[in-house]
Amino acid sequence: MADKYEQVLELAKRRGFIWNSFELYGGTAGFYDYGPLGAMLKRRVENIWRDIFVINEGYYEIESPTIGIEDVFIASGHVGGFSDPLTECQKCKEAFRADHLVQDVAENPDTLSADELTEIIGKNNIKCPECGGRLGKVYEFNLMFKTSIGPGGKRAGYLRPETAQGMFVDFPRLLKFYRDHLPFGATQIGKAYRNEISPRQGVIRLREFTQAEAEIFIDPRDKTHPKIKEVENIELNLYSQEGQSTGEMQKMSLGDAVKNGIIAHEFLAYCLAMTSRFLIRVGVSPEKLRFRQHMKDEMAHYAADCWDAEILSDRFGWVEVVGIADRTDYDLKAHAKQSEKELSVYVSYDVPKKIERFIVKPDMGILGPKFKGKAGKIANALKALKAGELSGDVIELEIDGEQIKIEKDAVKFESITEEVHGENIIPHVIEPSFGIDRIMYSLLEHSYFEEEAGKEDVIEEEKGEGTEAEEVEEKRIVLRLPPEVAPVQAAVLPLLSREELIKPGNEIVAKLRKAGILVAFDDSGTIGRRYRRNDEIGTPYSITVDYQTLEDSTVTIRDRDTMKQVRAGMSDIADSIYDLVYGGKSFEDAGKRI
Amino acid sequence: MADKYEQVLELAKRRGFIWNSFELYGGTAGFYDYGPLGAMLKRRVENIWRDIFVINEGYYEIESPTIGIEDVFIASGHVGGFSDPLTECQKCKEAFRADHLVQDVAENPDTLSADELTEIIGKNNIKCPECGGRLGKVYEFNLMFKTSIGPGGKRAGYLRPETAQGMFVDFPRLLKFYRDHLPFGATQIGKAYRNEISPRQGVIRLREFTQAEAEIFIDPRDKTHPKIKEVENIELNLYSQEGQSTGEMQKMSLGDAVKNGIIAHEFLAYCLAMTSRFLIRVGVSPEKLRFRQHMKDEMAHYAADCWDAEILSDRFGWVEVVGIADRTDYDLKAHAKQSEKELSVYVSYDVPKKIERFIVKPDMGILGPKFKGKAGKIANALKALKAGELSGDVIELEIDGEQIKIEKDAVKFESITEEVHGENIIPHVIEPSFGIDRIMYSLLEHSYFEEEAGKEDVIEEEKGEGTEAEEVEEKRIVLRLPPEVAPVQAAVLPLLSREELIKPGNEIVAKLRKAGILVAFDDSGTIGRRYRRNDEIGTPYSITVDYQTLEDSTVTIRDRDTMKQVRAGMSDIADSIYDLVYGGKSFEDAGKRI
Repeated sequence: MADKYEQVLELAKRRGFIWNSFELYGGTAGFYDYGPLGAMLKRRVENIWRDIFVINEGYYEIESPTIGIEDVFIASGHVGGFSDPLTECQKCKEAFRADHLVQDVAENPDTLSADELTEIIGKNNIKCPECGGRLGKVYEFNLMFKTSIGPGGKRAGYLRPETAQGMFVDFPRLLKFYRDHLPFGATQIGKAYRNEISPRQGVIRLREFTQAEAEIFIDPRDKTHPKIKEVENIELNLYSQEGQSTGEMQKMSLGDAVKNGIIAHEFLAYCLAMTSRFLIRVGVSPEKLRFRQHMKDEMAHYAADCWDAEILSDRFGWVEVVGIADRTDYDLKAHAKQSEKELSVYVSYDVPKKIERFIVKPDMGILGPKFKGKAGKIANALKALKAGELSGDVIELEIDGEQIKIEKDAVKFESITEEVHGENIIPHVIEPSFGIDRIMYSLLEHSYFEEEAGKEDVIEEEKGEGTEAEEVEEKRIVLRLPPEVAPVQAAVLPLLSREELIKPGNEIVAKLRKAGILVAFDDSGTIGRRYRRNDEIGTPYSITVDYQTLEDSTVTIRDRDTMKQVRAGMSDIADSIYDLVYGGKSFEDAGKRI
Repeated sequence: MADKYEQVLELAKRRGFIWNSFELYGGTAGFYDYGPLGAMLKRRVENIWRDIFVINEGYYEIESPTIGIEDVFIASGHVGGFSDPLTECQKCKEAFRADHLVQDVAENPDTLSADELTEIIGKNNIKCPECGGRLGKVYEFNLMFKTSIGPGGKRAGYLRPETAQGMFVDFPRLLKFYRDHLPFGATQIGKAYRNEISPRQGVIRLREFTQAEAEIFIDPRDKTHPKIKEVENIELNLYSQEGQSTGEMQKMSLGDAVKNGIIAHEFLAYCLAMTSRFLIRVGVSPEKLRFRQHMKDEMAHYAADCWDAEILSDRFGWVEVVGIADRTDYDLKAHAKQSEKELSVYVSYDVPKKIERFIVKPDMGILGPKFKGKAGKIANALKALKAGELSGDVIELEIDGEQIKIEKDAVKFESITEEVHGENIIPHVIEPSFGIDRIMYSLLEHSYFEEEAGKEDVIEEEKGEGTEAEEVEEKRIVLRLPPEVAPVQAAVLPLLSREELIKPGNEIVAKLRKAGILVAFDDSGTIGRRYRRNDEIGTPYSITVDYQTLEDSTVTIRDRDTMKQVRAGMSDIADSIYDLVYGGKSFEDAGKRI
């Protein structure tokens, strides 16, 4: 029997959500297209992300190029370290990830060096999984797609492996935009690339994918969050470092998790809350969502704490879809070093700080006559001295290799108190990073249901000829997508394909379109079959035009999930559907139950 | 004095619309970032495009990868022909477009071959514009960014030079999605790339840019448009082939243009109307917009007709921003050939056609006994004959090099009438292709005004301490963006930065955000300066909270363009702003004029 992944992909291909890219030419691993329904679904998912991060948190979106220059990825470490260990079959020339091949004979294979992997392959006599041939020496293969900017190959370009670097490189501009105040954040939704050696996990491992990332720059001395109160009672499935050592997940409120030191600080906890809210709102099942903390040895050396949102899938188990990390000042420091520019924020103190400072004042009236031309050099040397070095009666200096003695009375010194109003600090970065394609697959899988629908009540035609006895299939596939992400938001179905019913149908279509509702008109096949077609693509509401419509200007609205129907007026149908989709209107309030 | 381009770019960089990419590392020609305001503006522009093409025309969007495989671009002609002629300075190694260098000494330099250009450069003694060095032999430089998919360089990949090919490659899937009915269309908004030799026109010539393209597949025998009536009275500035020969633009209705044979057909005319509607809606000035027809020698050989939407800019003159072409069956045929698959649509006739067909029936009862083993071959040869070849008494055939004579009575033949219900046709493609970045620049330029604002009425503070006498600058920069594209849709400004005014201000912010309105809160500086700041970024409405707000829960709303103010209730402020931005509500109706 087909597993859930196959079932979902079959539907996705057949109905136009997702399919292999370049099918016409046989396809290429790691590339998928979003078809008409998939692209619309993706757009809606991305817009919900924007609603949360951009509109409501105020982290403006930017758009930087997908091609980056070499400096950027030298700074980020991708030129040096973004690679997978590769071994090639000497016979069939197929390439493999060496760490995957030794999975059964080595522990933590992803921590091994190329030489170690070569040795393990040799010792264990591991052969090419395709043809049994001998495997070559393992080497590190850089996963960035490389290209060349302009003619002559003089300037290397790389397809970005993440959108994040765009925000780091723009830090000076962003700081100015936010008028030098911390915290501030910038976001980006866009393509990122990873030239996988040999991707074999379908839509889960893509060579070109979409990321939605926020880089939030905060004051390292204050990792509280002003809105923590709003989320501290939210309970999440946490799989902490400790939990992982005992294999136990824990349902815990964010407030407690911070209090107990499980989540490092409020700001990170708040990001977990936003992430959970987003994922559930787009259609991920809450019980199939958990937050797993990175183990100490798995976390980047610079990170203060890191949590992955993981989603349970039928075939792949728990799949990482979001990473939420406190990256400290690592990225800004790296770019400051590479660009030789200062990347910091001047932060004013609430109250100016008083700082004691020791100053030395050489008496030029004494030094001048005594040392003539050397007096200036001596004065500077004296000014550089610290309090302790001025304690004796005679001060010894070395000027141009010459030992010089200065009497104490030629130098005055004192301690003064200065007011300091602020300092330059390097912000820390909190980064929630979303893999949109995996989220897309997850929500399709979680929305996918095959069920016995039973014989559905099909509207009785009250006038004359009557519909032919319908063969409504009693089994249905239904995508229980949240209405606000469903690609097609309403279907308009004239009961029969006749001019007198098509006309009011088209009027409804025009009204809905004007309100920005994506509507499908369908007058082919029996009404039952049309309901099924729309169930399959997740259309939440089907509007049927029948002969009663011609009498009293009402239509039926059918709810996808319950298959219940209400009778509602045609005049405010656009508002009604709009409120059902976006306004949280309940279906019962949309019309008279029939 | 700075020209308009400089003024617009200065504002764009300073306020966060557009800036050079990789500034931290000195920048790279041909790459620009959209900053926080620019990216939001771009998003809104793209969403209006979607509203028109996807929601209202029903041309679903798809999303295919930005990396394409070689087959695709061999079929499209980009591997062979997407190039510019390049010459390199032998001294300083700088690269130039050879056709640009000979501009003053040759006519139509873009039609010349590399050899011809080399000759002209030599004859005219043209030197390197940078250093005066000798220029090298001209060669064709392919403008696609090239990369390699997977390890070993075995599989070439190209960054797509246009989004269009994604739709062509997906034709079989799309046809199925639209249930085999013409016309249908698919759209895509996404990145496209062009590895310019040496881009020197700022935001006008980018190496990475955003396209919005529709590929509409229509029946080649019927290029009418069902909604032509809705647009036939729209008058556009047309600059036809004929007009260009006399240098005259013509304001003409689309109906007349089709009737007079200026625009090839209704479908193209309808696309011109949609284009015009889109451009004006996002903020292009109608009087700075024209549609220029491609001249015969400039049009692709396969195109039936082609029009560019051009926008007048201060520095660059008329700039092409949209191309609208009838590409006939060129693209589908090219991919059918390369992929060796049939790309066509079976079209049923309304009424089955009767077709006369001539059939030959060899009489095996005669042929069998006479020719034995050869009888089968002879029968097949007879069946392949045409009516004229069967007219004599004896039929001569050559079978396996042997001349054979057949008596007439061994062959019966007749003409039969068959019913044919339809045929396979290759659709024609209508392609409106939008350059989003150029449109972005154009609408910024067209919206940009420096004006004497005069002393603006600043709200009098009625209670107590009073604001300090303000120094309101009397000159203002204002971006007159249409409210529905303005990045920040409303600013909330407490008259003074005091807790009692900040609190209701924050309440309004929360309400607006919940309604999906992008709102900026600003309490720093005088109210007049804050108005100016918001004028500059095009915020259409500023909401001021003052001491009267505390008494009667009203606020002032200020209109960016007229600087007029109304007093409105706080309770329905979200609906009010929403309707002003999206619902076409007039400012006068938003409150009581003050």
